[in-house]
Amino acid sequence: MQAELLYEGKAKRVYQAQGKPGHIVLEYKNDVTAFNGDKKAILTGKGRLNNDIAAHIFEFLNEKGVQTHFIEKLSGIEQLVHQTEIIPLEVVVRNVAAGSITRRLGIETDTSFNPALVELFYKDDGLGDPLVNDEHALFLIDITRSELREIKTKALEVNRQLSKLFESINLKVVDCKLEFGRLANGYVVLSDEISPDTCRLWDITTNENLDKDVFRQGTGDLLEVYQKLLNRLKART
Amino acid sequence: MQAELLYEGKAKRVYQAQGKPGHIVLEYKNDVTAFNGDKKAILTGKGRLNNDIAAHIFEFLNEKGVQTHFIEKLSGIEQLVHQTEIIPLEVVVRNVAAGSITRRLGIETDTSFNPALVELFYKDDGLGDPLVNDEHALFLIDITRSELREIKTKALEVNRQLSKLFESINLKVVDCKLEFGRLANGYVVLSDEISPDTCRLWDITTNENLDKDVFRQGTGDLLEVYQKLLNRLKART
Ligand SMILES: Nc1ncnc2c1ncn2[C@@H]1O[C@H](COP(=O)(O)OP(=O)(O)O)[C@@H](O)[C@H]1O
Ligand SMILES: Nc1ncnc2c1ncn2[C@@H]1O[C@H](COP(=O)(O)OP(=O)(O)O)[C@@H](O)[C@H]1O
Ligand SMILES: [Mg+2]
Ligand SMILES: [Mg+2]
Repeated sequence: MQAELLYEGKAKRVYQAQGKPGHIVLEYKNDVTAFNGDKKAILTGKGRLNNDIAAHIFEFLNEKGVQTHFIEKLSGIEQLVHQTEIIPLEVVVRNVAAGSITRRLGIETDTSFNPALVELFYKDDGLGDPLVNDEHALFLIDITRSELREIKTKALEVNRQLSKLFESINLKVVDCKLEFGRLANGYVVLSDEISPDTCRLWDITTNENLDKDVFRQGTGDLLEVYQKLLNRLKART
Repeated sequence: MQAELLYEGKAKRVYQAQGKPGHIVLEYKNDVTAFNGDKKAILTGKGRLNNDIAAHIFEFLNEKGVQTHFIEKLSGIEQLVHQTEIIPLEVVVRNVAAGSITRRLGIETDTSFNPALVELFYKDDGLGDPLVNDEHALFLIDITRSELREIKTKALEVNRQLSKLFESINLKVVDCKLEFGRLANGYVVLSDEISPDTCRLWDITTNENLDKDVFRQGTGDLLEVYQKLLNRLKART
């Protein structure tokens, strides 16, 4: 029995879930990419780590009443989720300035945003995922003004819950990249992944990066760092 | 009697107006620059043309009740204006897609925006005038949320009036770049210049460009084209 591959992305494969219409299986790959695909590697074990970490995070969010696509972890590298029609926006929430925004706007790394700052990027690899404002988003994407507002409100709520979760393991959420999608009934839920690939997580005490920046900047062993993060999440429960 | 030079920019010099506190003189230079200063030239007569064209436009806007900094044309290359504290945003209003937005967002040239699309760019040459969203603007700039709303509303009103003016001389306003500033009493008024350096103007019948694109793209003689535009404006009255 071979599940149908619907899509292969940079970090995951998407399969039709067998005999479960409206459900898909996300398989986490060992690939790691940065700078829009310019830097890449395959690290055995990375898929397992991210699948495990993402499952912990989505379970926490589901418990807290945040509506997500996540149903359950199926295997070491797979999770079962509700299929959604992805809204092609990368919704970035920033609590602290790091990465692209520091260069783009000349803001010093470590500057706090309070309230958290929300950015929208049009999910289009060919265009390099350009920053957009609300008017661009409404023009480019099949989305209503009220859905756009709803997405931003939900993104801030996800950020609040993530910040609580990670604070409990002595990490601060510097920023996170979220994707939302529409269920068959039109309801907009958090989709895709939440992992150290898509968030910046800094140790509150030491400022150590427990995220993909160790790969981007070549400052640490990604597998070791992701394992450390997973251990902290596991020790919580 | 030597007026004090307050600032020299890419296209204009700004002088303190002698004996008139709260007023400045804008002197239009012959310099033309494009692509963030990468392409440049000095064209004798360009300052006169732009000063004349801008004066026509500001007079029209003032008549229509749009509050602007413009008081009067003083000489061939100078105009007297109210000094404002410039809000460092380039407010771009687009009726039709052309230039950077077509490459940035993959939108075909000549696509109509209805309603007109407003973009904000953070006025900072060192950063290359990056696109910002409202939250960036509120973080980077000393401006309130209601002033930001007001600026966008005013920008759309300016665009409506400009579109009427230019329609009467068979041109469509494809886009325009506006700057706003605060008067001493805090009131926000349209400042800087409006000219074929800062607007795209296409002949409604032939689609001919009567603007700086002839210089950017090397498709025509800037002085001839600006003179043609001025002649049409003069013929109106
Ligand atoms: N619940 C979902 N339903 C349908 N598609 C999803 C869902 N969650 C995530 N996706 C999409 O699946 C793909 C996941 O693969 P990924 O490797 O992240 O791709 P990409 O390289 O496009 O980011 C993404 O295109 C993502 O938008
Ligand atoms: N009414 C005003 N009061 C004060 N400054 C103004 C006013 N109108 C325009 N300016 C500023 O004067 C300068 C005009 O020169 P310009 O050559 O356009 O400069 P730049 O290269 O910085 O765009 C700009 O910095 C502009 O923001
Ligand atoms: Mg992805
Ligand atoms: Mg200027």
